[in-house]
Amino acid sequence: MTAPANDTVFTWAAPPLKFGLGALDEIGGELAASRARRVLVLTDPGVRNTGIPARVQDRIRAAGIECEVFDDVAVEPTDVSIDLAVKWAREKDWDAFVAVGGGSTIDTAKAVNLLTTHDGELLDYVTPPIGAGRVPDGPVKPLIAVPTTAGTGSESTTICVVDLLSMHLKAGVSHPRLRPTLALVDPLTTVSMPSQVTAASGMDVLSHALESYTAVRFDTKPAPADPMRRPAFCGSNPISDVWCEMALKLVGSHLRAAVHNGRDLDARYQMALASTYAGTGFGNAGTHLPHANAYPIAGMAQGYRAHGYPEMPMVPHGQAVAATAPAVFAWTYPADPERHLRAAELLSGATFTRTDGAEALPHVLRELMADIDMPSGLSAFGYGEHHIESLVDGTLKQTRQLAVVPRQLDRAAAADIFRTSL
Amino acid sequence: MTAPANDTVFTWAAPPLKFGLGALDEIGGELAASRARRVLVLTDPGVRNTGIPARVQDRIRAAGIECEVFDDVAVEPTDVSIDLAVKWAREKDWDAFVAVGGGSTIDTAKAVNLLTTHDGELLDYVTPPIGAGRVPDGPVKPLIAVPTTAGTGSESTTICVVDLLSMHLKAGVSHPRLRPTLALVDPLTTVSMPSQVTAASGMDVLSHALESYTAVRFDTKPAPADPMRRPAFCGSNPISDVWCEMALKLVGSHLRAAVHNGRDLDARYQMALASTYAGTGFGNAGTHLPHANAYPIAGMAQGYRAHGYPEMPMVPHGQAVAATAPAVFAWTYPADPERHLRAAELLSGATFTRTDGAEALPHVLRELMADIDMPSGLSAFGYGEHHIESLVDGTLKQTRQLAVVPRQLDRAAAADIFRTSL
Repeated sequence: MTAPANDTVFTWAAPPLKFGLGALDEIGGELAASRARRVLVLTDPGVRNTGIPARVQDRIRAAGIECEVFDDVAVEPTDVSIDLAVKWAREKDWDAFVAVGGGSTIDTAKAVNLLTTHDGELLDYVTPPIGAGRVPDGPVKPLIAVPTTAGTGSESTTICVVDLLSMHLKAGVSHPRLRPTLALVDPLTTVSMPSQVTAASGMDVLSHALESYTAVRFDTKPAPADPMRRPAFCGSNPISDVWCEMALKLVGSHLRAAVHNGRDLDARYQMALASTYAGTGFGNAGTHLPHANAYPIAGMAQGYRAHGYPEMPMVPHGQAVAATAPAVFAWTYPADPERHLRAAELLSGATFTRTDGAEALPHVLRELMADIDMPSGLSAFGYGEHHIESLVDGTLKQTRQLAVVPRQLDRAAAADIFRTSL
Repeated sequence: MTAPANDTVFTWAAPPLKFGLGALDEIGGELAASRARRVLVLTDPGVRNTGIPARVQDRIRAAGIECEVFDDVAVEPTDVSIDLAVKWAREKDWDAFVAVGGGSTIDTAKAVNLLTTHDGELLDYVTPPIGAGRVPDGPVKPLIAVPTTAGTGSESTTICVVDLLSMHLKAGVSHPRLRPTLALVDPLTTVSMPSQVTAASGMDVLSHALESYTAVRFDTKPAPADPMRRPAFCGSNPISDVWCEMALKLVGSHLRAAVHNGRDLDARYQMALASTYAGTGFGNAGTHLPHANAYPIAGMAQGYRAHGYPEMPMVPHGQAVAATAPAVFAWTYPADPERHLRAAELLSGATFTRTDGAEALPHVLRELMADIDMPSGLSAFGYGEHHIESLVDGTLKQTRQLAVVPRQLDRAAAADIFRTSL
């Protein structure tokens, strides 16, 4: 028996983009162009308080379009919170949806779009083995994503991530039909974001870039048995590499300033651009271990409250992702030392060589995280040695991410990473 | 009266991409996924002789889909040649189209797709003032573009360029619905391309990159009166800049090798990537004067025959674009000296400073063109001093391109550029 041949093909896709200061004011025209007559705007209470969704509603009505706002999206959405939003939305007919907020809102809007145009419940569409893996067999409505956190990348992806409360784990629904029809990015919408949200969102962008940059190369994976079922994450490739490098450079140069002075418009602009690079440029290269670890970290936490976020116990996604990133990238270093050193250089502006070794990139990450007041270890979220086995269990369920981890991962290695990150 | 405010918004869009060695073999699966039952493959006689369209037809039939091939696309299509293709295609019903070839074939397929799903003739849809500017008000069919020339970029754009024979000028039809639904790029399809076609296509990629890189910046143009009618070419911007730089580097490093040894697979791969960068990365930033000049150069030429192209008089698009590029970039230099010097560096690998001045980039271009045996002046196409006024007339009709020329262009400047290029 011969070894299967490696893959030779990569894929890439992104929605159309409208980017710029004041771009938000064009939302009425965009919806009118799609001939919408009745539009639902989704947002969360924190973003509602910035006044941006009300402005969006005004602009849409000014274009002669009926518009209602659902402002009860949950930060880090759950099956329960999405079910609530869907029940509410199913009461009426909508021609189009607008998501104003972070990844939580955009993901919720994808689910609402799916479940107001198709029957069934969310779990029917969740990727197996957790859900039934049902595929939407007809079109959905136009969805304009207006990301306000300069972090998610959800405006460009086909994925909706949801916390399944009863199962204590995060899972995903993913289908090309769920991709927003337009990403409308206006850096002015990020100016009012609290500094802790800016920090966590920025670390999410950073980790998207680092994970995609260090993911298994598309042509070192075996070719899929059915090429039409190539995984959603295709691995690092010549296109994603360009975008990752640019995003790393921008985050390294501007995240500190955006966190420390939210009114620094240039920093906000550059971070919105970095996040857009993440969404349009390398969304489907693949995130790997920091994201796989983030799901149990966020799913199992109890009692942790994050400053700047709603008054409820939860670990923000960006904090959960960043928590194990330094340990992960020390461990992945041998898979491609040059690329890890190059990433450290792009982030820091300093020069590194092989003698700096595996600790160069983690060192740069820890310095940045300290500068922007990110929690410095899993213990901050309430985790201890006795949680490690359960965390590892959660990580090992994230098959989509594990497929592009650049080294062979076993329980012991996963446990070591969590232990180092305590 | 106050001056109008500058624009602050740029737009960007590209079709999904499948890229890699052997990607072409997945075309049957792609069409099956779109539920097509009857597919028309369009190609030109030169590409037909490579055997690639027959292989495409086999793959499509192997997926259980009816498939016919129209192999009579004209290189540098005209209103007459497109009319022929449309008449042929209107005889039957098609669920999807596949274009296998260069820009001529992909542009023809866009027109066939439009005119088999909508009534009327091509001129109805041509941009005013030349045509009636009719807009397709309903959907068109899926169109998969398989570019085989590593040059066009048409696989990513909304534009169909056509030579209007009776008017002796080139014109365009452009609408978002005309954008292909998938760009399927397989570098193996470029291996059989004649060296002269490789050279001209490569210069077209190079000029796309240089023109987009030096086009007016999006935020130095006045804001459009109606933001929903922002021009198709939005000017250089932070996203297009990244891709232009990457494409310039790849063309500078690999075009010579691809021209001199068509079987150099790495050179073919890198040129296919450069062309993809042009399509996906900066397709709507904007081409300017070399492209505006190329239209009358190609439209008015009589009797010139290009080696490696069909036995008929015509100036290949890439040759027409390259002919005035050195003179254009000497003239645009003052608009942004740093950017012109940086482009010369990316293309050549050498270092340039302000003391090298306006001639640095033209020098690099002329060296490259000599190395790949491109025609060295407009006189090669049969033009002389007495044609200049007519050429200028043709250039000044290209309003889409002229809108992003980085300096104020008058008749005298346009004539000087043609004169220097003789």
